Amino acid sequence: MSPITDRTISLESEVRSYSRSWPVVFDRARGSKLYDDEGAEYLDFFAGAGALNYGHNNPALKKVLLDYISDDRVMHSLDMFTSSRNDFIDTFNSLILEPRGLDYKMVFPGPGGANAVEAALKLARKVTGRESVVSFTNGFHGMTLGALSVTGNSLKRGGAGVPLVHATPMPFDDYFDGDYPDFFYFEKMLTDSGSGLNTPAAVIVETVQGEGGLNPARVEWLRGLSELCRKHDILLIIDDIQMGCGRTGTFFSFEEAGIVPDMVCLSKSISGYGIPMALTLIKPELDVWEPGEHNGTFRGISAGFATAAETLRAYWADDAFSFEIRAKAEKVAKRFQSIVDVTPGITVGVKGRGLAQGIECATGEIADRVSQAAFERGLLIETAGPEGQVVKALPALTITDEELEAGLEILEGAFASVASGELADSASIIPGREESYA
Amino acid sequence: MSPITDRTISLESEVRSYSRSWPVVFDRARGSKLYDDEGAEYLDFFAGAGALNYGHNNPALKKVLLDYISDDRVMHSLDMFTSSRNDFIDTFNSLILEPRGLDYKMVFPGPGGANAVEAALKLARKVTGRESVVSFTNGFHGMTLGALSVTGNSLKRGGAGVPLVHATPMPFDDYFDGDYPDFFYFEKMLTDSGSGLNTPAAVIVETVQGEGGLNPARVEWLRGLSELCRKHDILLIIDDIQMGCGRTGTFFSFEEAGIVPDMVCLSKSISGYGIPMALTLIKPELDVWEPGEHNGTFRGISAGFATAAETLRAYWADDAFSFEIRAKAEKVAKRFQSIVDVTPGITVGVKGRGLAQGIECATGEIADRVSQAAFERGLLIETAGPEGQVVKALPALTITDEELEAGLEILEGAFASVASGELADSASIIPGREESYA
Amino acid sequence: MSPITDRTISLESEVRSYSRSWPVVFDRARGSKLYDDEGAEYLDFFAGAGALNYGHNNPALKKVLLDYISDDRVMHSLDMFTSSRNDFIDTFNSLILEPRGLDYKMVFPGPGGANAVEAALKLARKVTGRESVVSFTNGFHGMTLGALSVTGNSLKRGGAGVPLVHATPMPFDDYFDGDYPDFFYFEKMLTDSGSGLNTPAAVIVETVQGEGGLNPARVEWLRGLSELCRKHDILLIIDDIQMGCGRTGTFFSFEEAGIVPDMVCLSKSISGYGIPMALTLIKPELDVWEPGEHNGTFRGISAGFATAAETLRAYWADDAFSFEIRAKAEKVAKRFQSIVDVTPGITVGVKGRGLAQGIECATGEIADRVSQAAFERGLLIETAGPEGQVVKALPALTITDEELEAGLEILEGAFASVASGELADSASIIPGREESYA
Amino acid sequence: MSPITDRTISLESEVRSYSRSWPVVFDRARGSKLYDDEGAEYLDFFAGAGALNYGHNNPALKKVLLDYISDDRVMHSLDMFTSSRNDFIDTFNSLILEPRGLDYKMVFPGPGGANAVEAALKLARKVTGRESVVSFTNGFHGMTLGALSVTGNSLKRGGAGVPLVHATPMPFDDYFDGDYPDFFYFEKMLTDSGSGLNTPAAVIVETVQGEGGLNPARVEWLRGLSELCRKHDILLIIDDIQMGCGRTGTFFSFEEAGIVPDMVCLSKSISGYGIPMALTLIKPELDVWEPGEHNGTFRGISAGFATAAETLRAYWADDAFSFEIRAKAEKVAKRFQSIVDVTPGITVGVKGRGLAQGIECATGEIADRVSQAAFERGLLIETAGPEGQVVKALPALTITDEELEAGLEILEGAFASVASGELADSASIIPGREESYA
Repeated sequence: MSPITDRTISLESEVRSYSRSWPVVFDRARGSKLYDDEGAEYLDFFAGAGALNYGHNNPALKKVLLDYISDDRVMHSLDMFTSSRNDFIDTFNSLILEPRGLDYKMVFPGPGGANAVEAALKLARKVTGRESVVSFTNGFHGMTLGALSVTGNSLKRGGAGVPLVHATPMPFDDYFDGDYPDFFYFEKMLTDSGSGLNTPAAVIVETVQGEGGLNPARVEWLRGLSELCRKHDILLIIDDIQMGCGRTGTFFSFEEAGIVPDMVCLSKSISGYGIPMALTLIKPELDVWEPGEHNGTFRGISAGFATAAETLRAYWADDAFSFEIRAKAEKVAKRFQSIVDVTPGITVGVKGRGLAQGIECATGEIADRVSQAAFERGLLIETAGPEGQVVKALPALTITDEELEAGLEILEGAFASVASGELADSASIIPGREESYA
Repeated sequence: MSPITDRTISLESEVRSYSRSWPVVFDRARGSKLYDDEGAEYLDFFAGAGALNYGHNNPALKKVLLDYISDDRVMHSLDMFTSSRNDFIDTFNSLILEPRGLDYKMVFPGPGGANAVEAALKLARKVTGRESVVSFTNGFHGMTLGALSVTGNSLKRGGAGVPLVHATPMPFDDYFDGDYPDFFYFEKMLTDSGSGLNTPAAVIVETVQGEGGLNPARVEWLRGLSELCRKHDILLIIDDIQMGCGRTGTFFSFEEAGIVPDMVCLSKSISGYGIPMALTLIKPELDVWEPGEHNGTFRGISAGFATAAETLRAYWADDAFSFEIRAKAEKVAKRFQSIVDVTPGITVGVKGRGLAQGIECATGEIADRVSQAAFERGLLIETAGPEGQVVKALPALTITDEELEAGLEILEGAFASVASGELADSASIIPGREESYA
Repeated sequence: MSPITDRTISLESEVRSYSRSWPVVFDRARGSKLYDDEGAEYLDFFAGAGALNYGHNNPALKKVLLDYISDDRVMHSLDMFTSSRNDFIDTFNSLILEPRGLDYKMVFPGPGGANAVEAALKLARKVTGRESVVSFTNGFHGMTLGALSVTGNSLKRGGAGVPLVHATPMPFDDYFDGDYPDFFYFEKMLTDSGSGLNTPAAVIVETVQGEGGLNPARVEWLRGLSELCRKHDILLIIDDIQMGCGRTGTFFSFEEAGIVPDMVCLSKSISGYGIPMALTLIKPELDVWEPGEHNGTFRGISAGFATAAETLRAYWADDAFSFEIRAKAEKVAKRFQSIVDVTPGITVGVKGRGLAQGIECATGEIADRVSQAAFERGLLIETAGPEGQVVKALPALTITDEELEAGLEILEGAFASVASGELADSASIIPGREESYA
Repeated sequence: MSPITDRTISLESEVRSYSRSWPVVFDRARGSKLYDDEGAEYLDFFAGAGALNYGHNNPALKKVLLDYISDDRVMHSLDMFTSSRNDFIDTFNSLILEPRGLDYKMVFPGPGGANAVEAALKLARKVTGRESVVSFTNGFHGMTLGALSVTGNSLKRGGAGVPLVHATPMPFDDYFDGDYPDFFYFEKMLTDSGSGLNTPAAVIVETVQGEGGLNPARVEWLRGLSELCRKHDILLIIDDIQMGCGRTGTFFSFEEAGIVPDMVCLSKSISGYGIPMALTLIKPELDVWEPGEHNGTFRGISAGFATAAETLRAYWADDAFSFEIRAKAEKVAKRFQSIVDVTPGITVGVKGRGLAQGIECATGEIADRVSQAAFERGLLIETAGPEGQVVKALPALTITDEELEAGLEILEGAFASVASGELADSASIIPGREESYA
C-alpha cells in the first residue's frame, strides 16, 4: 500500500486533473465499484471516461487475460502477425462488420484514441489531396497536434503553443436550439465559390459529443451530414472513441442513423479491460497507404487483442446486450428527467443518449457542487461541457440494476442537497485531507 | 490457434510492414525467444523495437502482473491517484532520479512515445512563447502531427497530408563525417540576426538515433549541444524513448555525457512488459500547465505502473545490470567488427552504442537480404536508416550470453551467405507460403 | 503607336484577364473616355476598378502633376520627409480626419492595396498577440499571401500554392437573405469557449464588397459588427480600398454607419491619378511598431502625394462633391431598377451603394454577354461576384450627367439585346480580330 | 513649401525610419543631387535604395513622361492592352531578352518588388505541387507575408505576427568564410531522404544581397546553385529587384555567371523614374496560370511602361552603359580599399559588386556614425547588414565622375573623422532641430 504524501504529489506536474476532484488513492476495482486504499467503496458512474464499458476487471475478460499472460502468449508485437491479432481481426469482422453489412479494412494506428484520429486525418488528406478538415463546435478528438486542431475546447487548444490550423469548426446539431435549418451555413459555404472556406478533405464528428457536454446529434442530422459529404465529395469520419463499443446501445453509435462513414475511429473500450488499444476502420478504396507510411510501437498489444476479441464474443454475438443497455438507458432518462423536474432553479435539462446521459445545470459551478456532493456520498461522476455545466453519467454498460439504482439515488440526493443549499464549503468536505491534496 | 489466411490479411490496411518481412504468425514468447503458431522458434534481436528491454514476459514482472490482475487492482484510472501509480512515482524518484541527482516533475502524457513527445513540444512552446523547434537530420519522434514535424524520414513525413512546419532540421553529430566543427551551422544561424532561422523554443534530440540508423552522438557533441541551448535560452529535450531504460548501458542514455536535459521523453520499455506507457520528465520550473490543459484516456495504466516499478526494483537498484549490459555490448561490438572486417564489399562499418548496435551495409538492399537470411535461420533482426542500410540489433538487455552468442552466430552466417551470393531469391524462401503473405 | 501582334501577346503570361474581354489597345484617355490606337472611343464605367474615381487624367490633377515633374520635385523618397509628403499628411488630416472627428496615425505601407492590408494584419497580430483574423464570405483584399488568406474567391485562393491559414470566414451581411439574425453565428462562436474558433486578432471587412459582387453591408450590420468587436476586444479593420475616396458618396464608406474602425486601408483612388499609393490609418494607441519593422521601396511616391493632396483640396474641402455623387447614384439606381423591371428572365436585382452599383443577372454567362454587348456598343463595364453574375458599374465619380446618361443608355441596350437573344456569338463580334487576341 | 512640424510628425506611425537618419525635408532633386526645403544640397549615394539607377528626374525620361502625361495617354489600365504596355513588352524583348538569348514570358504582378516575389513563389508552388521554398541567410525579399517568410532579418520577421513557415534558410555563399565547400549542407539535405528538409519547390536568391550587407555570391557559387537546382528538379528564382537594371554592371546581375534562372523578379529601377512597377519573368513552360488567378490594381502603370521602355532604348541598346558602370565600380572599389587600409581599427573590408559596394565596419554603431558624419557633410549613404555594420554605397549608375569623386571624398572624410574620434555626439549635430525630429 502506498499512501499518498505531499512529496509524491509534488513529483507530478500540475497538469493532473481528476485527482483534484477525487483526492483519494484508488486501489482495487471490480465491475462498477472502486475501493480506495483505506477500503472505502465508490460506485463508478465514470467508467474510465468510457474506457471501461464492460466494468472494471470484468471476470470473463479477466480469465482470458490471466490465461493469456500465464501461457506466455506474445504481449507486444508491433504489426507482426500474432494469433491473438488474427483472431481479433477475424472476430471483429465476423461479429461486428459482416452482420452490419459493413466493409472496412482495419488500421491499428497506435495505442490511443488520438492515434486513431491522427491516422484517419492523415489518410483523408492523402486520399483527397486537400489539407483542411471540418470539425464541429464542442467536438473533442484528442491532445496530439493533429487531433487537437479539430478539438473545440479553448483551454486544450491554448496548450498547443502553435496556431492550430487546417481545420474549420461548423455548428454541431442543435447549436442554435433548432432555430435554423441543418447545414444551412456549412452547405452555403461549400456551394459558394467565394466563401473563403478551404474545401475540406473530410469532416470529423462524434454522434454524441461526450466531452462537449453530451450533445447528441439527431439521426436526421447525421443522415443529412452523410448526404452532404457524399454530394460534395468529402470524407465522413465518425469518431466513435467514446460513443462506440455499445455506449449508445448499439456497437457503433451511428447504426441507428443508418449511415456508413468512410472512416471510423475506435479506442477506449475496444480492448475491454482498460488496456490501451485503438482501431481505425477505413473503406477499402481509401487504403492508399504505402507499407510503413504510418507506424508506431504499440500497435500490437496482443493481450488487448485477446480481451477485445472476448468482449465481442461475450457481448456482441447477439442483440441481448443491446437491449439491456437500452433498458438501462431508459431508466436513467426517466430518473434524470424527474431530477430536472424538481430542481428548476439549478438544472436546465437532460442531455445525451444511451448510457451517455447527463443533466445540464444552470452553471458549471452548480455541476461541480453536485459532482462533489456525489463524491462525498460515494459516487464518482464527472462534469463535461465548455463550462463544465453538465453532470455526465457514464456508467459501465454492465452495471447491475441495483448499482444503477443506487447510483441514481445518490445523484438525486446530491442534486437535492445542492438545490437546498446544504452543501458545505468544499474546504470542509474531508477534514484534515485538504492540505495534502490541494 | 488462428492460422493466417488471405481473408484475414485482406481485412488489414496495406500500411502494415513487419508482417511483410516476417510472414509467420507469432504466438508465444519468453525472454529472447518467440514461437510461431506451428511451434517454430525464433531468436529475438528486435525486442519490440526497444519496447522489450527486459525480454518477453519477464518472469519477475509476470508475477507482479498476474498478482495485480488476480487481485482486481485498478487497471485503468486516467490521472486519478492509485496505489500503483503512487508507488511508481515514489520508486522512480528514489531509484532513478535521486541517485542521479536529477530533479524532475513527471507528466503522464498518454500511452505512447508520440504522446511523450507531443507533451514536451507543447510545454516547450508554452513556456517560451516561441513556436519553432529544432530537430536533427534522421531523427525519429513519432507519427502524430506534432511528433512527425520533428521527424526526418521523408516517407513518414509525406504521410502527413499537410505541410509539416514549425521545425527546422539541423545536422546531427557526424553528419559530415567529422569534416566540420560541431554546431558550426546551428550556432551561426542562432547568432546571426539575419539568418532567417525562427528562434527555437527547444531542440529535440536522440542520443543515439535508432530508426535513423543507429547514429550515436558523441558525449562531447551532446555536451556542446547542451551548452549551446543554455547559452541561447533554448530548452533541451532528450527523446529517450528507444535509447532510455538501459538500452545504452545506463538508465538514461544521456548519463554518460553528464548533461541535464530540460525535458526527457520515455516510453517503450518503461512499463517493462510491453504495456503501453509513456512519461515526460520536466524541470520543475517549466511546470506552467493549467490543470487538465493536456489530458488523455490512457494516462493511468495501473498494471503498467506495477510492472514499471518492478523493473526499477529488479534491475536498477544497483549498478549490476548496467555492468552486464556493457559487457554484452562489448561482445556485440567486437563480433560486429569482425563481421565487417571479413565482408569489405558489402559492409561499411559498425554503428551504435550499448545494446543498440548495427552493421551498416553498402546498400539497403544488402541489409534487407541479410535480415531475410537471418530470418530464414531463425533470427529476428530489422533494418534501419534512411535507406534501410543498417542491420540493427536491439536484443533484450536480459538476453543470456548463450542466446547472444547464438544470435551473433546466425547473423555472421547471414552476412557470410549474402557476401558469397548464396542467398536464394526471396520468392523461394518459404515455399508455398508466398501467395498468402504477399 | 504600337499595334498589338501575336508575338507581343505570346510574350505575356496567360494570367492576363481584362485584355481577354476588351481585346483592343487603349492609348489615350480623358475623364470618362478611353480611346484605342485606332481612335475608337469607349465610355468608361470601370474606372480602373475604382482607381480612377476622379476620371482619367483629371485636368486639375494633371496640372499639379506636370508642374511637379517639370519642377524636378522629389519623385521617389522611401519614407524620407519630403515637402509633398508633409503637405499630404497635413492636408489629409485637416480636410479629412479632423472634420470627421477621426484621430488616426498614418502608415505608408507600400504602393498597393495589398500592402495596406498586409500592414494592417501584421499590426493587428502584433498588438493583440493573436494570429487569427476573421474575414467575410466573398471578401476581397489582395493577392499577397497575407491578403489572400482573408480573401474568399476560390480561384485566387487556389493560386497560393500553400494552405491559407490563420483566417476564418464569417457570413457577410445578408448572406442568408435576411433569414437569420446578424452575427448569430459569429457571436455564438466567440462566446462559446468550446467552439473551436481561434480568438481573432481582428476582423477585416469591406462596407460594400466590390469584387464579391457589390454586396452592401447595412449600416445596422456595420454598427453591430463594430459593437461586437468592441465587446470582444477584437480590432475592426475596414478595407476601404475600393469603396473609399468617395465611391459610396462620402470620403470613407463607413461614415454613414457612424462607426470608427481601429484601422482603415486605403489605396486605388487615393493618389487620384492612377499612381500607385496606399495608406493604412491606425488608431494612435495601436502604434506599437519599431522603426523600420515594416518597410518597402515605394512608400514615398511623392508625385502621388502631390496629386493626392490636390484631390482633397479640389473635391473634399466641402460637401458639394458628396451631394453630386449621391445625385448620380440615385440616377443609376433608378435606371438599373427599370432595367431589372423589364428583364425578369435574365436579371435578379440591383446591388450596391453610391456609385458602386450593379445588376445581378441570373447567371454569370448572361452577365458576360451583357458586358460583351456593352463593349460592342462602346461601353467598358466589368462583371463581379463569385460566379461573375453581377454587371458592375463603377463610373468615375466625376462623370458628367451626359456621359452617365449615355452609358446607362448603352447598358440598357445591351441588356435588351441579351434579353431578346439577339447577341451574336462572341466569335463574330469583331470580325478579323479574333485570331490576334484569342 | 511645407516645413515639417511636430504635429506633422506625430501624425505618422513610429514605423518610419529613413526620416530618423536624415531629419530634413527634401524637396527637389536632379541626377545625383537632392535639395531640402531650405535649399541645402545633398549628394545621393542612396538612389532610392536602388530605385533610382538612372538618377533623380533623368532628363531623357522626364521628357517622355511629361509628353506622356501632356498627351493624355492612358495612365492606369490594370492588365488591359495599352500602346505603352505593348511597346514596353516588345522593347524589353528585343533589347534585353533576345540579345541575351533569354526566353521568358512576362508577368506584371503588381506595383512593387514584393508583388514580383509573391507571384514567383505562388507560381513555383503551383507548378511543382510543393509548398516549401529554400531561401538564404540574410536574404531580403519584401514585407508581405509570402515575401517575408523568405526574408532573413529577425526584426522584420518578428513583425509578421504569425509564424513564418514553408521556407528554410540555407547558408549563402561565403557564409562560413570559405571554410566549407559550397552547398555541402544543402546538397546533403536534399540527397538524404531522412534529413527532414521538406523538398523545396524553389530556391530564391539574390546574386548580391543588398539589405543583407552587400554580400556578393561568386559566379561559381551561382553556377553551382543553378546546377544543384537542375539536378534536383527545383526551380531557381533570382530576385534581381535591387541588383538588376544594371546595378552590377550588366542588365541582369546573373549574366556574368552565365546561368538562366527559371524566374526573375524585377522592380525598383525598372520604370526608371521612381514610378512603382514590377515584373516577374518566367520560363514559358512554367506558365500554368489560369486567367486572372493572380491579379491586382496596379499592373498597368502606363506612364511607367513609357519611361521603362525609354530606359532600355537610352541605356541598353548597346554595351556603352555597362562599360561606364564597371569603370565607376572600379573607381569605387579602389577608393574603398584605400579607406579600409587606413582605418584598420574600425573597418573590416570592402563588400559588394558593381555599383553596389560598401565598407564593412567593426560594429553597426561605427557604421551609423560614419553615415551620420557623411550626412553632416552633405552625403546621403545608408547602412545595411544584420547589425547595420556595412556602409552601403548605391549611387545612381548615371552619376558623373565629378559627383562620384566628390561623394567618395566626403565618405573618406567621414571615415577619417570617425576613426579619429572627432565625431560630435549626434545630439549636437544639427542644433535646435533635435526636439522636432526625435
